[in-house]
Amino acid sequence: MPDSTPSPTPTPVPAASSTPSVVAAQRRSAELEQLISSDPGRFRVLTGDRPTGPLHLGHYFGTLANRVRLQAAGVEVFVVIADYQVITDRDVAGDVRGNVRELLLDHLAAGLVPRTATSTGPDGPGGSGATVFTHSAVPALNQLVLPFLSLVTVAELQRNPTVKAEAAAAAARGGAAGRGMSGLLLTYPVHQAADILFCGANLVPVGQDQLPHLETARVIARRFNDRYAGGREVFAGPEALLSSAPLLLGTDGAKMSKSAGNAIPLRASADETARLIRSARTDAQRRTTYDPVHRPEVSSLLLTAALCRGTTPEAVAEEVGDGGAAALKEVVTEAVNEHLRPLRQRRRELADADDHLRAVLAAGGEHAGAVADRTLATVNQALGVTC
Amino acid sequence: MPDSTPSPTPTPVPAASSTPSVVAAQRRSAELEQLISSDPGRFRVLTGDRPTGPLHLGHYFGTLANRVRLQAAGVEVFVVIADYQVITDRDVAGDVRGNVRELLLDHLAAGLVPRTATSTGPDGPGGSGATVFTHSAVPALNQLVLPFLSLVTVAELQRNPTVKAEAAAAAARGGAAGRGMSGLLLTYPVHQAADILFCGANLVPVGQDQLPHLETARVIARRFNDRYAGGREVFAGPEALLSSAPLLLGTDGAKMSKSAGNAIPLRASADETARLIRSARTDAQRRTTYDPVHRPEVSSLLLTAALCRGTTPEAVAEEVGDGGAAALKEVVTEAVNEHLRPLRQRRRELADADDHLRAVLAAGGEHAGAVADRTLATVNQALGVTC
Repeated sequence: MPDSTPSPTPTPVPAASSTPSVVAAQRRSAELEQLISSDPGRFRVLTGDRPTGPLHLGHYFGTLANRVRLQAAGVEVFVVIADYQVITDRDVAGDVRGNVRELLLDHLAAGLVPRTATSTGPDGPGGSGATVFTHSAVPALNQLVLPFLSLVTVAELQRNPTVKAEAAAAAARGGAAGRGMSGLLLTYPVHQAADILFCGANLVPVGQDQLPHLETARVIARRFNDRYAGGREVFAGPEALLSSAPLLLGTDGAKMSKSAGNAIPLRASADETARLIRSARTDAQRRTTYDPVHRPEVSSLLLTAALCRGTTPEAVAEEVGDGGAAALKEVVTEAVNEHLRPLRQRRRELADADDHLRAVLAAGGEHAGAVADRTLATVNQALGVTC
Repeated sequence: MPDSTPSPTPTPVPAASSTPSVVAAQRRSAELEQLISSDPGRFRVLTGDRPTGPLHLGHYFGTLANRVRLQAAGVEVFVVIADYQVITDRDVAGDVRGNVRELLLDHLAAGLVPRTATSTGPDGPGGSGATVFTHSAVPALNQLVLPFLSLVTVAELQRNPTVKAEAAAAAARGGAAGRGMSGLLLTYPVHQAADILFCGANLVPVGQDQLPHLETARVIARRFNDRYAGGREVFAGPEALLSSAPLLLGTDGAKMSKSAGNAIPLRASADETARLIRSARTDAQRRTTYDPVHRPEVSSLLLTAALCRGTTPEAVAEEVGDGGAAALKEVVTEAVNEHLRPLRQRRRELADADDHLRAVLAAGGEHAGAVADRTLATVNQALGVTC
């Protein structure tokens, strides 16, 4: 299932590929990280997720913590909750409202500071907070999809890696796309381009397998400038900020994912977390070592603990020593529960603050709407359709 | 080039086909005309055009006069000026603003009474006037395209007769679609469905070659109700009102069309009209007879005069008698200029009333926007994406 915007699927450990374009992107990302340190104010990040359920540890270390880090560094952050994209590949929307709420709770609990009607910043009220909004709340953003659709061909959309992969995956599991790819799935890269371009985001965090995802946005930006604006730069192409986030495995040894039922949700209690980690697959060796290639499950547990404690997986392995799987799991459980304790505490507090959650989405939607209205006016002016 | 909404291309004379579905549609249209006479208030018509240039005699007798007739009969009329669809199949938008103005002038000059901010009716201010609006002015209508895209497959869109024909035509003439079909062209039937469904139109005037055009709107209505509304009828499927309008030939004997340069524009002066008709292709026979199969050019001229004078082409032929082409053209010129005189007079008056034209589009856009907002709220409620 495509995220509406390219949020990093954590990259494999060790790195799966080192093609020239990936190497170039890695080099550029290192430069960008330098620039973020020295001049964060020049960057605006667009990122987001489809609201299909609460987030888990893999999301946290893969994308969520990075968003919080970028905001803390002084980068302006837009987070789209891609509610319309929930029906890209499924028959029923499910509890979208509830899932939007969970997604928002996870972000706020993780430390993202949202724009609210009363917050203030250099950009006016709410200026320093992250703009968190749902697709459905910003008609002008969605309207941009129409002129943008004129700038890409059907063949280009069909070659998009996500569209290809999702069409295959959906066909394999039956359901909505078992009937054939929906028009919404095919055009999803254009919706994603609208997400990025409407707010002039110049930075999009992605995993290295997601580098092609930005291409449609860059193509649309370039063609719009050339075809409709006489070469004037109405839209600048966004850059990829490669995530160095590691891949966490689920309790069954496969990639951690909401739909696989192998994930440790951020919102789980300490006891649930202990139970889930106790059930995790390991191996029969008594001595714990960090060896991602030959002992992926054990190594992923070590990595989890290391990430939580800000140390290395090797150091955690040393500590567990000959204690076997039970000792390892105890260490990991404590590390996770300790690290997530303040997050979970905030989550519980916020869960009772429905008015606040609604206010965050309202303020985000209002600001995103104002930004989208300005962009749409520029686009319509270039097209000559304003009266 | 697809109209955004199925506006009748006049059907050939004599009728090109009489398949069972066409016969059924003809029978139903006759019933609908009866119902329009007895209870016009139950009908809402959606129709429209792409703003690609001023309208001509073929448009007038094919679609425009019918819109005016339906409004005069008491049917509520929505007219979409499909400005975003101008870039479906061309590289440059052209003078969209100017073309929107010409299209509006043609409608008002032909007698369409527009909703304005100050007009009153049963539906509140402006209630009895036609709602004339541009796509670009109604974000909520465009937003409906996204959820609707989830309800059709790419394969279904590719089978749409207009999409197929336009893809072939565009490929043949090179240009935008010479690069391959654009995403906007492929998804055009969904935009058209949004035009029809956003305002709950239950009647769409079409030519018989356009019967399949309504299918996407009907499919989306049915699937939305089934998939997202638990079978509740959120959207009713629109019905086709078959046009009995005849095909007028251009001055070169081919179908009259803006792009072929063979058209008599409504806005032409009496002298230009005379010159254009003098240049029309006829044949060498001295005696004028109405024989559409063997003498298409002469018959089309007779038909033009007959439509203008509310008589039959046979009667006009009788009147011209043995006068030959010159006499025929004189009769036709006088009939056209006489019929269009009040229209042209109104057009000249309106052309100076820029404030009025802007007010008409603003009032139409505002009303369409309010209607679209309500529909979008219903759709979002059904999808569960409202917060």
